[in-house]
Amino acid sequence: MNKHEWLTQKYPKQGERLERFSTISNMAVAPQYTPEEKQGTDYEQDIGLPGEYPYTRGVYPNMYRGKFWTMRQFAGFGTPEDTNRRFRLLLSEGQNGLSTAFDMPVLMGYDADSPRSLGEVGREGVSVSTLNDMERLFDGIPLDKVTTSMTVNCTASIILAMYIAVADKQGVPREQLGGTIQNDMLKEYIAQKEWICPPEPAVRIVTDMIEFCAKQVPRWHAVSISGYHIREAGSTAVQELAFTLADGIGYVQAALERGLDVDEFAPRLSFFFDIHNDFFEEIAKLRAARRMWAKIMKERFGAQQPKSLLLRTHCQTAGVSLTAQQPMNNVVRVAIQALAGVLGGTQSLHTNSMDETLALPTEQAVMVALRTQQIIAEESGVTNTIDPLGGSWAIEALTDRIEHDAFAYIDRIDELGGIINAINTGYPQKEIADSAYRYQQQLDAEEKIIVGVNKYQVPPEERPLELLKIEPEVERSQIERVKKIKAERNQTAVSEHLGRVHAAARNGTNLMPPLIEAVKASCTLGEISDVYRDVFGVYRDPAWL
Amino acid sequence: MNKHEWLTQKYPKQGERLERFSTISNMAVAPQYTPEEKQGTDYEQDIGLPGEYPYTRGVYPNMYRGKFWTMRQFAGFGTPEDTNRRFRLLLSEGQNGLSTAFDMPVLMGYDADSPRSLGEVGREGVSVSTLNDMERLFDGIPLDKVTTSMTVNCTASIILAMYIAVADKQGVPREQLGGTIQNDMLKEYIAQKEWICPPEPAVRIVTDMIEFCAKQVPRWHAVSISGYHIREAGSTAVQELAFTLADGIGYVQAALERGLDVDEFAPRLSFFFDIHNDFFEEIAKLRAARRMWAKIMKERFGAQQPKSLLLRTHCQTAGVSLTAQQPMNNVVRVAIQALAGVLGGTQSLHTNSMDETLALPTEQAVMVALRTQQIIAEESGVTNTIDPLGGSWAIEALTDRIEHDAFAYIDRIDELGGIINAINTGYPQKEIADSAYRYQQQLDAEEKIIVGVNKYQVPPEERPLELLKIEPEVERSQIERVKKIKAERNQTAVSEHLGRVHAAARNGTNLMPPLIEAVKASCTLGEISDVYRDVFGVYRDPAWL
Repeated sequence: MNKHEWLTQKYPKQGERLERFSTISNMAVAPQYTPEEKQGTDYEQDIGLPGEYPYTRGVYPNMYRGKFWTMRQFAGFGTPEDTNRRFRLLLSEGQNGLSTAFDMPVLMGYDADSPRSLGEVGREGVSVSTLNDMERLFDGIPLDKVTTSMTVNCTASIILAMYIAVADKQGVPREQLGGTIQNDMLKEYIAQKEWICPPEPAVRIVTDMIEFCAKQVPRWHAVSISGYHIREAGSTAVQELAFTLADGIGYVQAALERGLDVDEFAPRLSFFFDIHNDFFEEIAKLRAARRMWAKIMKERFGAQQPKSLLLRTHCQTAGVSLTAQQPMNNVVRVAIQALAGVLGGTQSLHTNSMDETLALPTEQAVMVALRTQQIIAEESGVTNTIDPLGGSWAIEALTDRIEHDAFAYIDRIDELGGIINAINTGYPQKEIADSAYRYQQQLDAEEKIIVGVNKYQVPPEERPLELLKIEPEVERSQIERVKKIKAERNQTAVSEHLGRVHAAARNGTNLMPPLIEAVKASCTLGEISDVYRDVFGVYRDPAWL
Repeated sequence: MNKHEWLTQKYPKQGERLERFSTISNMAVAPQYTPEEKQGTDYEQDIGLPGEYPYTRGVYPNMYRGKFWTMRQFAGFGTPEDTNRRFRLLLSEGQNGLSTAFDMPVLMGYDADSPRSLGEVGREGVSVSTLNDMERLFDGIPLDKVTTSMTVNCTASIILAMYIAVADKQGVPREQLGGTIQNDMLKEYIAQKEWICPPEPAVRIVTDMIEFCAKQVPRWHAVSISGYHIREAGSTAVQELAFTLADGIGYVQAALERGLDVDEFAPRLSFFFDIHNDFFEEIAKLRAARRMWAKIMKERFGAQQPKSLLLRTHCQTAGVSLTAQQPMNNVVRVAIQALAGVLGGTQSLHTNSMDETLALPTEQAVMVALRTQQIIAEESGVTNTIDPLGGSWAIEALTDRIEHDAFAYIDRIDELGGIINAINTGYPQKEIADSAYRYQQQLDAEEKIIVGVNKYQVPPEERPLELLKIEPEVERSQIERVKKIKAERNQTAVSEHLGRVHAAARNGTNLMPPLIEAVKASCTLGEISDVYRDVFGVYRDPAWL
C-alpha cells in the first residue's frame, strides 16, 4: 500500500478531531509523512553531515557530544548589586554564561534621574546610568572567565563601551572578552519599537560596532540578529526566520559598503530565535535557518571561510506562550520548548521562569528554569546523538517547507529594495500584524487552544506564587547615586568627551573609541543618548502603521 | 564525505565530554545516524503505515488526528468517598478515564479490619474490603460512561467481581463495561512481589478472567501486561520490553491450552509500559513493542484478525526517576517523559505528580500533571502528525536495535521452557538485579547524572511543598464499617458462597461467576483471599534470589 492508497482507502478522514490541522503558525500538516516526501533529496547536498555545508544537522561536528549549549538565564533587576547577586547565584548553580536585562531607561537612553525614568528604574531590568553602575554590576566577576550577553539595542554602543571600560579597569585584554550584545536595531523598527534615531544612522552605529569588534574585540558578537521579538509580536515561524535573515542580510550589506571583508566580520554575527509551542515547527525552523544562512553567505555574499557560513544562535523559550493562569503549567511549556531548542541544535538557551508573566522571576522560579536545561542536558539522553531527528520524514518535509516559504519572503524584501526600504514601507510590520490578528481569531474561535486560557480554565489560584517585588528604595538610591557622580566628576572633561562623540557621530568616524573614553570620564548613558538625538534626530513610527 | 570519512576525519573524538555515550539502559549511542543505517530497510515490510502491519508507526490509521490518548491519572487514597471526590475532580477537569489505586491490604488480600492491615488502610490507595466500599467508590459515576483502570493483581479477580456487581446494581449491561484490570501476575514474580499463590494457579485465575471477559464483558481488558514494575525494579528498556512480551506469550499460551481461540481473546489483551528519562530510547521502545507483538501474534500464534496483532498500551511516567530533592524539577521530567510516550504512540497515559516521591499527590500537583498531558495534546502540535519521528535515522536504528535485543531475551526464555520456568529458575529476576546494580554503579561514579541528587544539589527547600496527609480517622472508619457489614450480613449465605468459590478453585471451573455472587452476598476481599490461600497455597520467593 502506498501513501496515496493509504490516505484514500485507510485513513478515516471523517474521524478527524479537527477540520484542519496546522502548526501554531497556520502551516498545514499532513496526517503522516513517508519516504515519498524524501524522493529527490540529495542527502549530501540538501542535508549533509554535522559541521558540514549546508549545516542542516548542526554547525559543529561534535555538537553536544563535545559540550552542552551555553545555559544563559536572562537576569537583571533593581540596583547593580541586586543583579550581581543573582548572577553569582546562577554561576554557582551551574549556569555557564551571563545574560543581562536592563531597565527601560537604559533601553530608551535615559539616566535614572531623568523625569522620563520615573517609576521605571530597576523595575524590569538592572538600572545603569554610569560606568560606576556597570562596575558594580560585574563586581567580582572576572570578564575573561565568563561570556556575557547584554540585551540592549539603541544604546548598545554606550553599554558596550562601558563593558569594555570595565574590562580595561579589570586589566582584561579586549581580545579575551567574549559575549554578545543584542544591538539589532532593524528588528526594533519591525517589532519591538525601542529606538532613538531612524534606521539609517542606527545601522551605521551597528556597523561601527561590527567594525570595531572585528578589529579590537575579536571574540565579541557585535550584533545578535534577533527573531525573538518579531515572533513575540505575533509573527509566524516563517516570518520570524525570514525577517531575521533579511535583517542579517542588511547588516552584511552595510558592513560590505563600509569596506569590510565579509570573512572578517561574518564569523562573529550571531542570531537569536524564539522557541514557541509548536515542537516540530521550531526544530525545523532552526534546521532551515542554518541551511539558509549558509547558502546566503556562500552564494549571495561569496564568503570563503567556513566559519562565515555558520548560523550560531541563542534561543529563548516563548515568553508570549506563558500564562498568568495556573502558572506552574508554564514549567511544562518551557520544558517542551527548551527540548525543541536543543533538538534544533541551539548554541545557547534561556528558559523562561514560570512566573515571568506575573513579575520578574524569583530565585526559586529561575532555579527550576535552569534545572530544566540541566535535566534535558544530563538526564534525557537527547544530547548523546547529533541531530537525532534528522531523516524523520515529517521533520525533513517541514524543514524544506519553512526554507521555501522564508526564501519567498526574502525575495519579496529584495524586490522592495532591501530591508530598510521594506521597513519604511511597513511591509514586515504589516505581515506580522496580519499573522497576529489571524492567530487571535483562531484563539477566539477555539481552533487553537491555550490550556487554562480558552480551555480548562479554573478559578484563580488559592495559593498564588510568591512574586519578586522591586522596592521603591531602588529608584531613590539609583537617582541619588547618579546625581552624586554627576556633581563630583570633572565637568570640563565630560564636555570635551561628549564633544568628541558628537563629532564622530557627525563626521562618520567610528564611534566606539570616543565612546569608551567618554564613559571612562563618567559621561552618562543619558547624556550620550542626547548626543545621538541631537545629531541623528528622533525616529517616529510611520503614522499609517 | 560519507559517514566513515566524517567519523575518522571530521569528528573530533578527543573533544567528547564523555568516555562513552549510552542510553540510561546502557545501550551504546553513535555520534550520529545517517541514511546508511537504513540501507536494507524495506519500508513497507519493516516500518509500514499507521494502522498497517507491522504497526511500527501506530496501531490505528488516524491515531491522535482522530482522538487524543486517554488521559488517565492513577488516583486512590483514604476512604472510598475520598477517592470518589478525586475522581470527580479529574473528570471535571478534562480527564477522560479513571484509574484506581488500591491500598496495600487490597493488593495483598486482607480486609481493613485484619491485624495485618494496621497502619496501611487507605494509606497508599483506596481501602476496599466489601462490595459496599466499591459502590461508594463509584457513587454517581455511571459505569457505562467512563472507562476504568484498576491496578490490582493477586486479588484482581475479586475486585473485578465487585466492579461487575456494581455495574449489575447500576443496571449497566456487562457488555457496555469498558476498562482494564492490571491482573498481570507474572510480572509480580519477576519484579513487584505482591502475590498470594504460586505462578501456576495465579495464571489459571488470570485465564479464568480472560475467558470470562471474552464471553461476558467483551469491552474489558482482563489483563494489562505490565512492564512498568519490571522497569521500576531497575531493568533496562530492552528487559522491560522482552519480559513483558514474554509474559504476554505466557498468557496467550495458557489461554490456548484452555481451548480458547486466539482471535477470541487476543484483541482484549492490553499492555502497560514505563516511560523513563531516556527520550529516544522510550519512543523507540514503544515502536519496537508494536512491531514485535504483531510479529509474535501473527507468526508464532497464527492470529488471523488484525485486531489480535495490535499492541495497545497504557503508559506511565517513571516514578523511580522522580526526586524528593527540588520536587518541582519533577514537573520537567514528567513533561519530557510524557512527550516521549505520546511520540511513541501510547493509547493511554498517566503523568506522575511532582510530589509522588514524598506522599500521595495533592490536588494541585495532580492538576499540573493532568495539564501536562493537555498542553502536549493541545499546544505542542505533536498530535497533528502520526508517528512524526518515523524515518529519523537515529530513531529507526534504535527501534531495530531494541527489537533485536529483546527478541534475543525471548529466545532465551523459550530455551528455558517458557516464562513460568524462567521465573522459577530466577532468570529474569537476576537479569534485572544485574541491571539495577550496574546503574547504581554508574550513578555512584557520576557516569549517569540525576539533577539534584548526584549533581546540582542544593540544601533542603526553605518552602517545601504542601503534602497530602491521610488522617488516622480513615483507618478507624473503614475498620468500623467492615466490622458492621460482617456483623449484619446473612452468614449462612456467606458460608455457602465462599464454599462455591472454594469448589470452583479446586475443580478448575471458572471462578468469576461464583466470585460475582459471593461479593454480592457481602463476602469480603479478605475472606475470598483466604480461600485462595487455602486451596492454592502461599508462594515464597525462591530463597536463593
